[in-house]
Amino acid sequence: MWRLFHFPLCPFSRKVRLLLSEKGVPYELQRVEPWSAGDEFYALNPAGRTPVLHDAEKNRTLCDSRAICEYFEETVEQAPMINGTAVNRAEIRRLTALFDENFYGDVTAPLMHERMKKRLFLREPPNSGILREAMKNAHAHLDYIDWLIDTRAWLAGPTKSMADLAAAAQISVADYLGGIDWAGHEQSRDWYFTFKCRPSFRPLLAEKMEGIHPPAHYAQLDVD
Amino acid sequence: MWRLFHFPLCPFSRKVRLLLSEKGVPYELQRVEPWSAGDEFYALNPAGRTPVLHDAEKNRTLCDSRAICEYFEETVEQAPMINGTAVNRAEIRRLTALFDENFYGDVTAPLMHERMKKRLFLREPPNSGILREAMKNAHAHLDYIDWLIDTRAWLAGPTKSMADLAAAAQISVADYLGGIDWAGHEQSRDWYFTFKCRPSFRPLLAEKMEGIHPPAHYAQLDVD
Ligand SMILES: N[C@@H](CCC(=O)N[C@@H](CS)C(=O)NCC(=O)O)C(=O)O
Ligand SMILES: N[C@@H](CCC(=O)N[C@@H](CS)C(=O)NCC(=O)O)C(=O)O
Repeated sequence: MWRLFHFPLCPFSRKVRLLLSEKGVPYELQRVEPWSAGDEFYALNPAGRTPVLHDAEKNRTLCDSRAICEYFEETVEQAPMINGTAVNRAEIRRLTALFDENFYGDVTAPLMHERMKKRLFLREPPNSGILREAMKNAHAHLDYIDWLIDTRAWLAGPTKSMADLAAAAQISVADYLGGIDWAGHEQSRDWYFTFKCRPSFRPLLAEKMEGIHPPAHYAQLDVD
Repeated sequence: MWRLFHFPLCPFSRKVRLLLSEKGVPYELQRVEPWSAGDEFYALNPAGRTPVLHDAEKNRTLCDSRAICEYFEETVEQAPMINGTAVNRAEIRRLTALFDENFYGDVTAPLMHERMKKRLFLREPPNSGILREAMKNAHAHLDYIDWLIDTRAWLAGPTKSMADLAAAAQISVADYLGGIDWAGHEQSRDWYFTFKCRPSFRPLLAEKMEGIHPPAHYAQLDVD
Protein backbone atom coordinates (compact mmCIF):
# COMPACT_ATOMS: atom_id res chain seq x y z
CA MET A 1 0.00 0.00 0.00
CA TRP A 2 1.05 3.58 -0.61
CA ARG A 3 2.25 5.52 2.41
CA LEU A 4 2.02 9.30 2.27
CA PHE A 5 4.68 11.26 4.16
CA HIS A 6 2.97 14.50 5.11
CA PHE A 7 2.03 16.87 7.90
CA PRO A 8 -1.51 18.13 8.49
CA LEU A 9 -0.95 21.68 7.21
CA CYS A 10 1.14 20.86 4.12
CA PRO A 11 -1.02 22.16 1.24
CA PHE A 12 0.74 19.99 -1.36
CA SER A 13 0.07 16.85 0.68
CA ARG A 14 -3.57 17.95 0.97
CA LYS A 15 -3.81 18.28 -2.80
CA VAL A 16 -2.45 14.74 -3.21
CA ARG A 17 -4.87 13.42 -0.56
CA LEU A 18 -7.81 15.01 -2.37
CA LEU A 19 -6.73 13.40 -5.64
CA LEU A 20 -6.10 9.94 -4.14
CA SER A 21 -9.46 10.05 -2.43
CA GLU A 22 -11.35 11.19 -5.56
CA LYS A 23 -9.63 8.44 -7.54
CA GLY A 24 -10.28 5.80 -4.86
CA VAL A 25 -6.60 4.97 -4.29
CA PRO A 26 -6.02 3.64 -0.75
CA TYR A 27 -3.07 4.98 1.25
CA GLU A 28 -1.88 5.31 4.82
CA LEU A 29 -0.46 8.40 6.42
CA GLN A 30 2.92 8.90 7.99
CA ARG A 31 3.62 12.14 9.79
CA VAL A 32 6.92 13.87 9.06
CA GLU A 33 8.19 17.39 9.61
CA PRO A 34 10.40 18.21 6.63
CA TRP A 35 12.31 20.99 8.44
CA SER A 36 13.57 18.55 11.07
CA ALA A 37 13.50 15.31 9.05
CA GLY A 38 16.41 12.89 9.23
CA ASP A 39 18.51 11.08 6.65
CA GLU A 40 15.83 8.46 6.11
CA PHE A 41 13.46 11.07 4.70
CA TYR A 42 16.17 12.67 2.55
CA ALA A 43 16.94 9.22 1.15
CA LEU A 44 13.32 9.03 -0.05
CA ASN A 45 13.29 12.60 -1.35
CA PRO A 46 16.58 14.44 -1.94
CA ALA A 47 14.52 17.67 -2.11
CA GLY A 48 13.65 17.11 1.56
CA ARG A 49 10.02 18.08 1.01
CA THR A 50 6.57 16.73 1.64
CA PRO A 51 4.61 15.13 0.05
CA VAL A 52 6.40 11.86 -0.64
CA LEU A 53 4.49 8.73 -1.59
CA HIS A 54 6.24 5.45 -0.92
CA ASP A 55 5.30 1.84 -1.57
CA ALA A 56 7.72 -0.34 0.39
CA GLU A 57 6.62 -3.67 -1.13
CA LYS A 58 7.04 -2.44 -4.69
CA ASN A 59 10.08 -0.34 -3.72
CA ARG A 60 8.55 2.64 -5.46
CA THR A 61 8.83 6.30 -4.42
CA LEU A 62 7.07 9.32 -5.90
CA CYS A 63 8.05 12.90 -5.01
CA ASP A 64 6.70 16.34 -5.86
CA SER A 65 2.95 16.82 -5.71
CA ARG A 66 2.56 17.64 -9.40
CA ALA A 67 4.62 14.62 -10.48
CA ILE A 68 2.55 12.47 -8.09
CA CYS A 69 -0.75 13.77 -9.47
CA GLU A 70 0.34 13.27 -13.09
CA TYR A 71 1.29 9.69 -12.18
CA PHE A 72 -2.17 8.85 -10.84
CA GLU A 73 -3.81 10.71 -13.71
CA GLU A 74 -1.91 8.39 -16.08
CA THR A 75 -2.49 5.17 -14.16
CA VAL A 76 -6.02 5.49 -12.66
CA GLU A 77 -8.93 6.20 -14.98
CA GLN A 78 -11.47 7.15 -12.32
CA ALA A 79 -12.12 10.87 -11.75
CA PRO A 80 -9.94 12.37 -14.48
CA MET A 81 -8.51 15.71 -13.35
CA ILE A 82 -6.26 16.71 -16.29
CA ASN A 83 -8.76 16.26 -19.05
CA GLY A 84 -9.75 17.58 -22.46
CA THR A 85 -7.73 18.94 -25.36
CA ALA A 86 -4.06 19.87 -25.09
CA VAL A 87 -5.15 23.51 -24.68
CA ASN A 88 -7.58 22.58 -21.88
CA ARG A 89 -4.84 20.59 -20.17
CA ALA A 90 -2.41 23.50 -20.47
CA GLU A 91 -5.00 25.75 -18.79
CA ILE A 92 -5.45 23.21 -15.95
CA ARG A 93 -1.68 23.02 -15.46
CA ARG A 94 -1.25 26.82 -15.65
CA LEU A 95 -3.78 27.32 -12.86
CA THR A 96 -2.37 24.45 -10.79
CA ALA A 97 1.02 26.16 -10.96
CA LEU A 98 -0.57 29.52 -10.10
CA PHE A 99 -2.03 28.09 -6.87
CA ASP A 100 0.95 25.87 -6.03
CA GLU A 101 3.45 28.68 -6.55
CA ASN A 102 1.86 32.13 -6.42
CA PHE A 103 -0.96 31.53 -3.92
CA TYR A 104 1.45 29.46 -1.83
CA GLY A 105 4.22 32.07 -1.99
CA ASP A 106 1.93 35.08 -1.49
CA VAL A 107 -0.45 33.66 1.12
CA THR A 108 0.02 30.12 2.47
CA ALA A 109 3.78 30.13 3.03
CA PRO A 110 3.90 33.41 5.01
CA LEU A 111 0.89 32.29 7.09
CA MET A 112 2.56 28.94 7.79
CA HIS A 113 5.77 30.68 8.77
CA GLU A 114 4.20 33.30 11.02
CA ARG A 115 1.43 31.23 12.60
CA MET A 116 2.77 27.67 12.53
CA LYS A 117 6.57 27.55 12.44
CA LYS A 118 7.06 30.53 14.74
CA ARG A 119 4.56 29.15 17.28
CA LEU A 120 5.70 25.53 17.22
CA PHE A 121 9.43 25.64 16.52
CA LEU A 122 10.94 29.09 16.51
CA ARG A 123 8.96 30.29 19.55
CA GLU A 124 8.84 33.83 18.25
CA PRO A 125 5.84 36.16 17.98
CA PRO A 126 4.30 36.52 14.50
CA ASN A 127 5.11 39.61 12.46
CA SER A 128 1.80 41.46 12.03
CA GLY A 129 2.99 43.37 8.95
CA ILE A 130 3.70 40.11 7.13
CA LEU A 131 0.34 38.68 8.21
CA ARG A 132 -1.51 41.77 6.97
CA GLU A 133 0.28 41.55 3.63
CA ALA A 134 -0.58 37.83 3.27
CA MET A 135 -4.25 38.52 3.97
CA LYS A 136 -4.25 41.36 1.44
CA ASN A 137 -2.71 38.97 -1.10
CA ALA A 138 -5.42 36.42 -0.27
CA HIS A 139 -8.08 38.97 -1.27
CA ALA A 140 -6.39 39.52 -4.63
CA HIS A 141 -6.26 35.77 -5.27
CA LEU A 142 -9.91 35.35 -4.23
CA ASP A 143 -10.84 38.17 -6.63
CA TYR A 144 -9.25 36.16 -9.41
CA ILE A 145 -11.09 32.99 -8.33
CA ASP A 146 -14.38 34.97 -8.22
CA TRP A 147 -13.71 36.05 -11.79
CA LEU A 148 -12.91 32.50 -12.94
CA ILE A 149 -16.10 31.18 -11.33
CA ASP A 150 -18.12 33.94 -13.02
CA THR A 151 -16.98 32.71 -16.40
CA ARG A 152 -16.67 28.94 -15.91
CA ALA A 153 -18.34 26.13 -13.97
CA TRP A 154 -15.04 25.10 -12.37
CA LEU A 155 -11.76 26.97 -12.16
CA ALA A 156 -10.19 25.66 -15.36
CA GLY A 157 -13.32 24.98 -17.41
CA PRO A 158 -16.54 22.98 -17.55
CA THR A 159 -15.36 20.12 -15.34
CA LYS A 160 -13.61 19.79 -12.00
CA SER A 161 -9.85 19.49 -12.40
CA MET A 162 -6.46 19.55 -10.67
CA ALA A 163 -6.77 23.35 -10.65
CA ASP A 164 -9.72 23.09 -8.24
CA LEU A 165 -7.90 20.58 -6.03
CA ALA A 166 -4.78 22.77 -5.96
CA ALA A 167 -6.74 25.92 -5.08
CA ALA A 168 -8.88 24.19 -2.44
CA ALA A 169 -5.80 22.66 -0.81
CA GLN A 170 -4.06 26.04 -0.50
CA ILE A 171 -7.21 27.82 0.67
CA SER A 172 -7.94 25.16 3.29
CA VAL A 173 -4.54 25.67 4.93
CA ALA A 174 -4.80 29.47 4.71
CA ASP A 175 -8.32 29.26 6.18
CA TYR A 176 -7.11 27.01 9.03
CA LEU A 177 -4.51 29.66 9.83
CA GLY A 178 -7.07 32.48 9.90
CA GLY A 179 -5.91 34.06 6.65
CA ILE A 180 -9.15 33.93 4.66
CA ASP A 181 -11.87 36.57 4.94
CA TRP A 182 -14.75 35.53 2.67
CA ALA A 183 -16.48 38.92 2.78
CA GLY A 184 -17.07 40.13 -0.77
CA HIS A 185 -16.09 36.75 -2.28
CA GLU A 186 -19.46 35.00 -2.65
CA GLN A 187 -18.45 33.11 -5.79
CA SER A 188 -15.25 31.77 -4.25
CA ARG A 189 -17.03 30.95 -1.02
CA ASP A 190 -19.79 28.97 -2.77
CA TRP A 191 -17.26 27.12 -4.93
CA TYR A 192 -15.14 26.27 -1.87
CA PHE A 193 -18.22 25.24 0.10
CA THR A 194 -19.28 22.68 -2.54
CA PHE A 195 -15.78 21.30 -2.25
CA LYS A 196 -15.76 21.18 1.55
CA CYS A 197 -18.89 18.99 1.44
CA ARG A 198 -17.25 16.27 -0.64
CA PRO A 199 -16.25 13.06 1.16
CA SER A 200 -12.65 13.57 -0.01
CA PHE A 201 -12.48 16.81 1.97
CA ARG A 202 -13.83 15.58 5.33
CA PRO A 203 -10.67 13.92 6.68
CA LEU A 204 -8.70 17.12 5.99
CA LEU A 205 -11.17 19.27 7.89
CA ALA A 206 -11.14 16.89 10.85
CA GLU A 207 -7.39 16.94 11.23
CA LYS A 208 -5.58 19.24 13.64
CA MET A 209 -2.08 20.58 13.99
CA GLU A 210 -1.37 20.39 17.72
CA GLY A 211 -1.26 23.76 19.47
CA ILE A 212 -2.83 25.64 16.54
CA HIS A 213 -6.58 26.12 16.50
CA PRO A 214 -8.51 26.92 13.32
CA PRO A 215 -11.27 29.58 13.41
CA ALA A 216 -14.83 28.38 14.17
CA HIS A 217 -16.01 28.51 10.54
CA TYR A 218 -13.09 26.38 9.28
CA ALA A 219 -14.80 22.97 9.44
CA GLN A 220 -18.42 24.19 9.29
CA LEU A 221 -20.53 22.67 6.54
CA ASP A 222 -23.20 25.38 6.34
CA VAL A 223 -22.57 28.58 4.48
CA ASP A 224 -23.87 31.09 7.03
CA MET B 1 3.67 31.90 -35.00
CA TRP B 2 4.42 31.49 -31.33
CA ARG B 3 5.99 34.47 -29.58
CA LEU B 4 7.96 33.79 -26.40
CA PHE B 5 7.94 36.51 -23.76
CA HIS B 6 11.25 36.11 -21.97
CA PHE B 7 14.46 37.78 -20.83
CA PRO B 8 17.92 36.37 -21.57
CA LEU B 9 18.67 35.15 -18.04
CA CYS B 10 15.26 33.62 -17.21
CA PRO B 11 16.07 29.92 -16.65
CA PHE B 12 12.46 28.81 -17.23
CA SER B 13 12.36 30.59 -20.60
CA ARG B 14 15.68 28.91 -21.45
CA LYS B 15 14.19 25.51 -20.67
CA VAL B 16 11.25 26.22 -22.99
CA ARG B 17 13.62 27.46 -25.72
CA LEU B 18 15.65 24.25 -25.49
CA LEU B 19 12.49 22.18 -25.80
CA LEU B 20 11.05 24.17 -28.72
CA SER B 21 14.34 23.94 -30.54
CA GLU B 22 14.76 20.18 -29.94
CA LYS B 23 11.19 19.67 -31.16
CA GLY B 24 11.64 21.94 -34.16
CA VAL B 25 8.85 24.36 -33.21
CA PRO B 26 9.48 27.84 -34.67
CA TYR B 27 9.00 30.88 -32.43
CA GLU B 28 10.01 34.49 -32.15
CA LEU B 29 11.32 36.22 -29.07
CA GLN B 30 9.89 39.20 -27.26
CA ARG B 31 11.88 40.73 -24.45
CA VAL B 32 10.00 41.54 -21.24
CA GLU B 33 11.09 42.24 -17.68
CA PRO B 34 8.47 40.69 -15.42
CA TRP B 35 9.37 42.88 -12.40
CA SER B 36 8.50 46.05 -14.33
CA ALA B 37 5.97 44.65 -16.82
CA GLY B 38 2.76 46.52 -17.52
CA ASP B 39 -0.92 45.55 -17.64
CA GLU B 40 -0.54 44.04 -21.09
CA PHE B 41 1.79 41.36 -19.76
CA TYR B 42 -0.42 40.68 -16.73
CA ALA B 43 -3.35 40.25 -19.08
CA LEU B 44 -1.44 37.45 -20.79
CA ASN B 45 -0.25 35.89 -17.52
CA PRO B 46 -2.00 36.83 -14.27
CA ALA B 47 0.99 35.29 -12.45
CA GLY B 48 3.13 38.07 -13.97
CA ARG B 49 5.97 35.70 -14.78
CA THR B 50 8.09 34.66 -17.72
CA PRO B 51 7.93 32.50 -19.78
CA VAL B 52 4.68 33.17 -21.61
CA LEU B 53 4.04 31.77 -25.07
CA HIS B 54 1.47 33.59 -27.15
CA ASP B 55 0.03 32.98 -30.61
CA ALA B 56 -1.87 36.12 -31.62
CA GLU B 57 -3.47 34.63 -34.77
CA LYS B 58 -4.87 31.65 -32.91
CA ASN B 59 -5.53 33.76 -29.80
CA ARG B 60 -3.78 31.15 -27.68
CA THR B 61 -1.67 31.77 -24.58
CA LEU B 62 0.40 29.28 -22.61
CA CYS B 63 1.90 30.12 -19.19
CA ASP B 64 4.18 28.33 -16.75
CA SER B 65 7.18 26.53 -18.16
CA ARG B 66 6.09 23.07 -17.04
CA ALA B 67 2.58 23.51 -18.47
CA ILE B 68 4.16 24.79 -21.70
CA CYS B 69 6.52 21.81 -21.95
CA GLU B 70 3.73 19.29 -21.26
CA TYR B 71 1.70 20.97 -24.03
CA PHE B 72 4.42 20.49 -26.65
CA GLU B 73 5.14 17.00 -25.37
CA GLU B 74 1.49 16.16 -26.04
CA THR B 75 1.22 17.90 -29.42
CA VAL B 76 4.63 17.39 -31.09
CA GLU B 77 5.96 13.86 -31.50
CA GLN B 78 9.55 14.79 -32.36
CA ALA B 79 12.15 14.53 -29.56
CA PRO B 80 10.00 13.09 -26.76
CA MET B 81 11.19 14.40 -23.40
CA ILE B 82 8.66 12.87 -20.96
CA ASN B 83 8.90 9.32 -22.09
CA GLY B 84 8.63 5.73 -20.87
CA THR B 85 6.43 4.07 -18.24
CA ALA B 86 4.38 6.05 -15.72
CA VAL B 87 7.18 5.44 -13.19
CA ASN B 88 9.84 6.74 -15.61
CA ARG B 89 7.69 9.80 -16.29
CA ALA B 90 7.24 10.43 -12.56
CA GLU B 91 11.02 10.34 -12.17
CA ILE B 92 11.47 12.82 -15.03
CA ARG B 93 8.89 15.15 -13.45
CA ARG B 94 10.39 14.77 -9.95
CA LEU B 95 13.81 15.84 -11.20
CA THR B 96 12.36 18.64 -13.34
CA ALA B 97 10.69 20.00 -10.19
CA LEU B 98 13.92 19.57 -8.22
CA PHE B 99 15.83 21.76 -10.69
CA ASP B 100 12.97 24.23 -11.30
CA GLU B 101 12.33 24.72 -7.60
CA ASN B 102 15.26 23.64 -5.41
CA PHE B 103 18.19 24.45 -7.71
CA TYR B 104 16.44 27.68 -8.67
CA GLY B 105 15.66 28.62 -5.06
CA ASP B 106 19.05 27.57 -3.66
CA VAL B 107 21.32 28.79 -6.47
CA THR B 108 19.87 30.58 -9.51
CA ALA B 109 17.44 32.96 -7.77
CA PRO B 110 19.94 34.34 -5.22
CA LEU B 111 22.56 34.75 -7.98
CA MET B 112 20.03 36.56 -10.17
CA HIS B 113 19.06 38.80 -7.30
CA GLU B 114 22.58 39.66 -6.19
CA ARG B 115 24.32 39.88 -9.56
CA MET B 116 21.55 40.89 -11.97
CA LYS B 117 18.69 42.72 -10.22
CA LYS B 118 20.95 44.60 -7.81
CA ARG B 119 23.28 45.69 -10.59
CA LEU B 120 20.65 46.63 -13.17
CA PHE B 121 17.68 47.89 -11.16
CA LEU B 122 18.29 48.25 -7.47
CA ARG B 123 21.78 49.72 -7.91
CA GLU B 124 23.01 48.15 -4.69
CA PRO B 125 26.19 46.15 -4.09
CA PRO B 126 25.80 42.34 -3.93
CA ASN B 127 25.77 40.62 -0.56
CA SER B 128 28.86 38.41 -0.48
CA GLY B 129 27.45 36.14 2.24
CA ILE B 130 24.44 35.28 0.08
CA LEU B 131 26.67 34.71 -2.96
CA ARG B 132 28.94 32.38 -0.97
CA GLU B 133 25.93 30.41 0.26
CA ALA B 134 24.51 30.12 -3.30
CA MET B 135 27.85 28.81 -4.58
CA LYS B 136 28.04 26.31 -1.73
CA ASN B 137 24.52 25.16 -2.62
CA ALA B 138 25.60 24.82 -6.26
CA HIS B 139 28.30 22.34 -5.19
CA ALA B 140 25.73 20.24 -3.34
CA HIS B 141 23.46 20.17 -6.39
CA LEU B 142 26.38 19.30 -8.70
CA ASP B 143 27.31 16.46 -6.31
CA TYR B 144 23.82 15.09 -6.82
CA ILE B 145 24.08 15.47 -10.61
CA ASP B 146 27.50 13.70 -10.50
CA TRP B 147 25.83 10.84 -8.68
CA LEU B 148 22.92 10.64 -11.14
CA ILE B 149 25.34 10.59 -14.10
CA ASP B 150 27.36 7.83 -12.40
CA THR B 151 24.29 5.62 -12.35
CA ARG B 152 22.41 6.62 -15.52
CA ALA B 153 23.15 7.76 -19.08
CA TRP B 154 21.05 10.91 -18.64
CA LEU B 155 19.72 12.51 -15.47
CA ALA B 156 16.38 10.70 -15.29
CA GLY B 157 17.30 7.43 -17.05
CA PRO B 158 18.57 5.95 -20.31
CA THR B 159 17.35 8.76 -22.57
CA LYS B 160 17.56 12.53 -22.57
CA SER B 161 14.49 14.10 -20.94
CA MET B 162 12.93 17.28 -19.55
CA ALA B 163 15.05 16.71 -16.43
CA ASP B 164 18.20 17.33 -18.47
CA LEU B 165 16.71 20.42 -20.11
CA ALA B 166 15.59 21.80 -16.74
CA ALA B 167 18.98 21.22 -15.12
CA ALA B 168 20.95 22.61 -18.08
CA ALA B 169 18.75 25.72 -18.19
CA GLN B 170 19.34 26.47 -14.49
CA ILE B 171 23.05 25.71 -14.67
CA SER B 172 23.52 27.89 -17.76
CA VAL B 173 22.13 30.94 -15.94
CA ALA B 174 24.10 30.18 -12.76
CA ASP B 175 27.24 29.73 -14.89
CA TYR B 176 26.63 33.03 -16.70
CA LEU B 177 26.46 34.72 -13.31
CA GLY B 178 29.74 33.17 -12.15
CA GLY B 179 28.12 30.78 -9.66
CA ILE B 180 29.43 27.47 -11.02
CA ASP B 181 32.83 26.06 -10.10
CA TRP B 182 33.29 22.81 -12.01
CA ALA B 183 36.29 21.65 -9.94
CA GLY B 184 35.59 18.17 -8.61
CA HIS B 185 32.49 17.73 -10.78
CA GLU B 186 33.86 15.95 -13.86
CA GLN B 187 30.67 13.96 -14.47
CA SER B 188 28.45 17.05 -14.35
CA ARG B 189 30.88 19.02 -16.45
CA ASP B 190 31.04 16.36 -19.17
CA TRP B 191 27.26 15.97 -19.19
CA TYR B 192 26.78 19.75 -19.42
CA PHE B 193 29.43 20.01 -22.12
CA THR B 194 27.64 17.51 -24.39
CA PHE B 195 24.59 19.67 -23.94
CA LYS B 196 26.35 22.93 -24.66
CA CYS B 197 27.46 21.56 -28.04
CA ARG B 198 23.92 20.90 -29.24
CA PRO B 199 22.46 23.31 -31.82
CA SER B 200 19.56 24.05 -29.45
CA PHE B 201 22.01 25.46 -26.90
CA ARG B 202 24.00 27.79 -29.16
CA PRO B 203 21.55 30.72 -29.29
CA LEU B 204 21.39 30.76 -25.48
CA LEU B 205 25.17 30.91 -25.13
CA ALA B 206 25.38 33.73 -27.65
CA GLU B 207 22.88 35.93 -25.86
CA LYS B 208 23.90 38.64 -23.42
CA MET B 209 22.21 40.53 -20.63
CA GLU B 210 23.42 44.09 -21.08
CA GLY B 211 25.85 45.28 -18.40
CA ILE B 212 26.49 41.78 -17.07
CA HIS B 213 29.41 39.80 -18.45
CA PRO B 214 29.68 36.03 -18.18
CA PRO B 215 33.03 34.43 -17.22
CA ALA B 216 35.36 33.46 -20.09
CA HIS B 217 34.51 29.73 -19.94
CA TYR B 218 30.75 30.33 -20.17
CA ALA B 219 30.34 30.01 -23.94
CA GLN B 220 33.48 27.94 -24.62
CA LEU B 221 32.92 24.70 -26.49
CA ASP B 222 36.09 22.91 -25.43
CA VAL B 223 36.33 21.27 -22.03
CA ASP B 224 39.76 22.52 -20.95
N1 LIG C 1 6.85 21.45 -5.45
C1 LIG C 1 6.71 20.72 -4.23
C2 LIG C 1 6.63 21.68 -3.03
C3 LIG C 1 6.55 20.95 -1.73
C4 LIG C 1 6.83 21.85 -0.52
O1 LIG C 1 7.25 23.01 -0.67
N2 LIG C 1 6.61 21.31 0.69
C5 LIG C 1 6.91 22.03 1.90
C6 LIG C 1 5.86 21.76 2.99
S1 LIG C 1 4.31 22.50 2.62
C7 LIG C 1 8.23 21.54 2.48
O2 LIG C 1 8.44 20.35 2.56
N3 LIG C 1 9.12 22.47 2.88
C8 LIG C 1 10.34 22.14 3.52
C9 LIG C 1 11.54 22.60 2.74
O3 LIG C 1 11.39 23.16 1.63
O4 LIG C 1 12.65 22.40 3.26
C10 LIG C 1 5.44 19.89 -4.35
O5 LIG C 1 4.53 20.31 -5.08
O6 LIG C 1 5.38 18.81 -3.76
N1 LIG D 1 6.80 28.16 -12.34
C1 LIG D 1 7.14 29.22 -13.26
C2 LIG D 1 8.23 30.10 -12.66
C3 LIG D 1 8.57 31.29 -13.54
C4 LIG D 1 9.39 32.36 -12.83
O1 LIG D 1 9.60 32.31 -11.60
N2 LIG D 1 9.86 33.35 -13.62
C5 LIG D 1 10.60 34.47 -13.04
C6 LIG D 1 11.73 34.90 -13.96
S1 LIG D 1 13.03 33.72 -14.00
C7 LIG D 1 9.68 35.66 -12.93
O2 LIG D 1 8.96 35.97 -13.85
N3 LIG D 1 9.70 36.33 -11.77
C8 LIG D 1 8.96 37.54 -11.56
C9 LIG D 1 7.95 37.40 -10.46
O3 LIG D 1 7.79 36.31 -9.86
O4 LIG D 1 7.30 38.43 -10.18
C10 LIG D 1 7.57 28.60 -14.55
O5 LIG D 1 8.06 27.46 -14.51
O6 LIG D 1 7.34 29.19 -15.60
